[in-house]
Amino acid sequence: MTSTKTNPGNYFEDFEFGQEIIHATPRTVTVGDVALYTSLYGTRFAVQSSDAFARAIGYERAPLDDLLTFHVVFGKTTPDISLNAIANLGYANCRFLKPAYPGDTLSSVSEVIGIKENSNRETGTVYVRSTGRNQDGDKVLEYVRWVMVRKRDKESPAPEAIVPNLAPRVDPANIGSAVPPLAIARYDYAIAGSPYRWGDYEVGEKIDHVDGMTLEEAEHQIATRLYQNTAKVHFNQHTEAKGRFGKRIVYGGVVISLARALSFNGLANAFHLAAINGGRHVAPCFAGDTVYAWSEILEKAELKGRSDVGALRIRLVAVKDRDCADFPLKTADDKYADGVLLDLDAWVLIPR
Amino acid sequence: MTSTKTNPGNYFEDFEFGQEIIHATPRTVTVGDVALYTSLYGTRFAVQSSDAFARAIGYERAPLDDLLTFHVVFGKTTPDISLNAIANLGYANCRFLKPAYPGDTLSSVSEVIGIKENSNRETGTVYVRSTGRNQDGDKVLEYVRWVMVRKRDKESPAPEAIVPNLAPRVDPANIGSAVPPLAIARYDYAIAGSPYRWGDYEVGEKIDHVDGMTLEEAEHQIATRLYQNTAKVHFNQHTEAKGRFGKRIVYGGVVISLARALSFNGLANAFHLAAINGGRHVAPCFAGDTVYAWSEILEKAELKGRSDVGALRIRLVAVKDRDCADFPLKTADDKYADGVLLDLDAWVLIPR
Amino acid sequence: MTSTKTNPGNYFEDFEFGQEIIHATPRTVTVGDVALYTSLYGTRFAVQSSDAFARAIGYERAPLDDLLTFHVVFGKTTPDISLNAIANLGYANCRFLKPAYPGDTLSSVSEVIGIKENSNRETGTVYVRSTGRNQDGDKVLEYVRWVMVRKRDKESPAPEAIVPNLAPRVDPANIGSAVPPLAIARYDYAIAGSPYRWGDYEVGEKIDHVDGMTLEEAEHQIATRLYQNTAKVHFNQHTEAKGRFGKRIVYGGVVISLARALSFNGLANAFHLAAINGGRHVAPCFAGDTVYAWSEILEKAELKGRSDVGALRIRLVAVKDRDCADFPLKTADDKYADGVLLDLDAWVLIPR
Repeated sequence: MTSTKTNPGNYFEDFEFGQEIIHATPRTVTVGDVALYTSLYGTRFAVQSSDAFARAIGYERAPLDDLLTFHVVFGKTTPDISLNAIANLGYANCRFLKPAYPGDTLSSVSEVIGIKENSNRETGTVYVRSTGRNQDGDKVLEYVRWVMVRKRDKESPAPEAIVPNLAPRVDPANIGSAVPPLAIARYDYAIAGSPYRWGDYEVGEKIDHVDGMTLEEAEHQIATRLYQNTAKVHFNQHTEAKGRFGKRIVYGGVVISLARALSFNGLANAFHLAAINGGRHVAPCFAGDTVYAWSEILEKAELKGRSDVGALRIRLVAVKDRDCADFPLKTADDKYADGVLLDLDAWVLIPR
Repeated sequence: MTSTKTNPGNYFEDFEFGQEIIHATPRTVTVGDVALYTSLYGTRFAVQSSDAFARAIGYERAPLDDLLTFHVVFGKTTPDISLNAIANLGYANCRFLKPAYPGDTLSSVSEVIGIKENSNRETGTVYVRSTGRNQDGDKVLEYVRWVMVRKRDKESPAPEAIVPNLAPRVDPANIGSAVPPLAIARYDYAIAGSPYRWGDYEVGEKIDHVDGMTLEEAEHQIATRLYQNTAKVHFNQHTEAKGRFGKRIVYGGVVISLARALSFNGLANAFHLAAINGGRHVAPCFAGDTVYAWSEILEKAELKGRSDVGALRIRLVAVKDRDCADFPLKTADDKYADGVLLDLDAWVLIPR
Repeated sequence: MTSTKTNPGNYFEDFEFGQEIIHATPRTVTVGDVALYTSLYGTRFAVQSSDAFARAIGYERAPLDDLLTFHVVFGKTTPDISLNAIANLGYANCRFLKPAYPGDTLSSVSEVIGIKENSNRETGTVYVRSTGRNQDGDKVLEYVRWVMVRKRDKESPAPEAIVPNLAPRVDPANIGSAVPPLAIARYDYAIAGSPYRWGDYEVGEKIDHVDGMTLEEAEHQIATRLYQNTAKVHFNQHTEAKGRFGKRIVYGGVVISLARALSFNGLANAFHLAAINGGRHVAPCFAGDTVYAWSEILEKAELKGRSDVGALRIRLVAVKDRDCADFPLKTADDKYADGVLLDLDAWVLIPR
């Protein structure tokens, strides 16, 4: 007798506008996860690395790396949202709302905020707003994501198309709540690794983060399982060998984390990722690729009522198998240049 | 002057019936080990993943995954029991007796409960009952295992053969003590990932766990060292290149853990492995193999005095490089089918 | 506009005698790091593995493995000291001064204690004394290291040559402060894994540690990032493919840790590395190499005022792709034999 208790994932027909999806599995994130996060990306931001440093400026203790929080919250959504997804089309309006600390238990809920069948009638786009909460029910993270999902049956009727109106950037008036008021005079620039603050960066400045990191299969699999992300393409060589690329695809979040960790070299004091305005995985990344990164300062903003930190809007670009001394991005015909993996638009906070 | 202080491992002649072997090294298992366990197998059972979930139903906090406890206790036995073993022949009567939590220190002792020379006079079978205890001396785990061990000298006299009488299954009257009385009404099925409880499963039901996971050398080595398991075949390519398979063999416990983690998809609420009735590593597993799994419900049992949880006896089968939609197990002549790695018979507990 | 905020690393001209360099990033070391350390090397010394064991003899809890402390302190120095280094020439006078525990925050400072341009005028040798401190400012570790660093410009004038006078060994009168007074009668030799104590070892005794461990790229990268060591040669296959060896070079500290972990088999009670008298990375190590180790007892010393532990001075040799039954070290012409990776001279402490 064959069981029907296995989760087959949701198809386009299973989503409806306004629907709320409660995701399994709640996860207590610990210093164990922090150590793994460090070991997988080599991140060096002092606030997240040192309890002593974090306490000196006003945190309870070193908070989780914002992207660790993001990946854990995101990972929970994969069995329900993207198991049958063909493509992760984009992110928008991602905001970190409250610091998460080791010991916090994170869980995720998504709301369907848009839905639109594609003209081929075989797929559709689903827009969700996913929210990560801690054990007290406080929101720590919120983001919008849209994915292309297969239909179960080409003949099913199309739902009324609803496409959310997504702002191209998060208003800086709405960021920063994940950073407590800081005793910023106690921020030690020498041990943080750089003298540069908010006032030292200029719009238009481009930063080559210099270093490159070669990814191994074991590394991205360990990372992706750490987040309890179940997307099959990252783990199953037996099926991927017959797939589009003949090999496993690295979870895009691994590329984001690597680029962010590399950005320490040039942005060492930009310790907090406050918001992701938008992001695009331009090309797939595979084991064996060497990831480099560069940033451009797109905009600067003061934060209402805060003299401790200011915001830099950065374009963070990850590139594979070429260094970034010439800031590779697009070709003359406005297509992404060969090797570009990620084009991310984010707000980071940095002492003033 | 060459030292003789190195442990050469025990040979068949070194074991005697009734002998007690105290194993090195005690090990404090922490949230660091839990994070690594999650990252290596992607396990998602809510009770072990979330302190908040575990506390809501009556645990002190999230207990260790039962197999993490098993592997740590088992790993300690390897330098004394199986350093010169040719084969790990089987497991029986494995029971989880008390929950283990991060911070507990585990240690292992084995008693030789059977011994029998093989007719070739070159090897013999040794049966041990191994017991894992916490820092308070409480038993957390007990199991019987038998291995084929080399003789040091073919001419040594054979000991009197004693073969223990091992029950084919653990009596369900003797399982469940590792689960405290649960406030099962507070068990949240939505965030646990499945609505199915004890009453929803039927004897004979077969569950394809769908997903496959490709193993890398770094992954199984990291896992096996985490358990301080010293068996040489898992780590040394220099010698294994000249060995039977030409490559390192994955510790069988890695396959058990992967199969158990994959079984979440279909058995999400079967949060506790209460007993292993028997288990057989049917074929060796190597890096590069993609592991799939399926289960069959063999039996159902109520637990004396407990209305919170019931027991399902499952056959958990791990298979490599083929999916499990057709539940591969044996061929017409009762041999294991190609690709079958593991045939495990276990009791799992699940809310009623 | 191209930023100049990226750290290009220091060149020979940037160092001057007496200079103090404060290194980024302070790091809280946790049980997460301990779990990773165990999983990467398989270390089994009871004092570091078990809180219960450590407390029984007088520690607060299980201290960090001494080499984990070393690697974290060392890793911080790499962006400032060795980013443009061609070779890590040696270590001397390394002493562990105070136990470090999970939860401690470690930071590093270096002082330039010697500087000497090479006759080719393209490089020079820089000697630094690096100090690791905990969150209270207490020294936990101190060592001298010298590296060959590129000059930015061949024509820059040579500084006055100053070469520190480095003792060939740490005086045993100055070691042991990282071990609290021990209730050594409560040291349990059975669970520690060996009956042998200080009195059982003889000068000239050579110990083959038997086991070999094959290294994977993912393993050494994960290890090296865990220490926030940024040296490029360990991580970037894209550039190393065009480099001297065509592949990534394993951080030498990984080899030291592997050799130390392997030395458990024969030196199980030598639980503390008290000092490194000197050390040389004889040949580079690469992924795929299988590392073996052997030790020789060079000297024995009592420690002033201590009847609990004594010191053994050992030569710890790591070798690749050959076993150590014949204790490979040098050839007839006093060159290191093929396969020798590491020649380390250290003091270890062991119960009397």
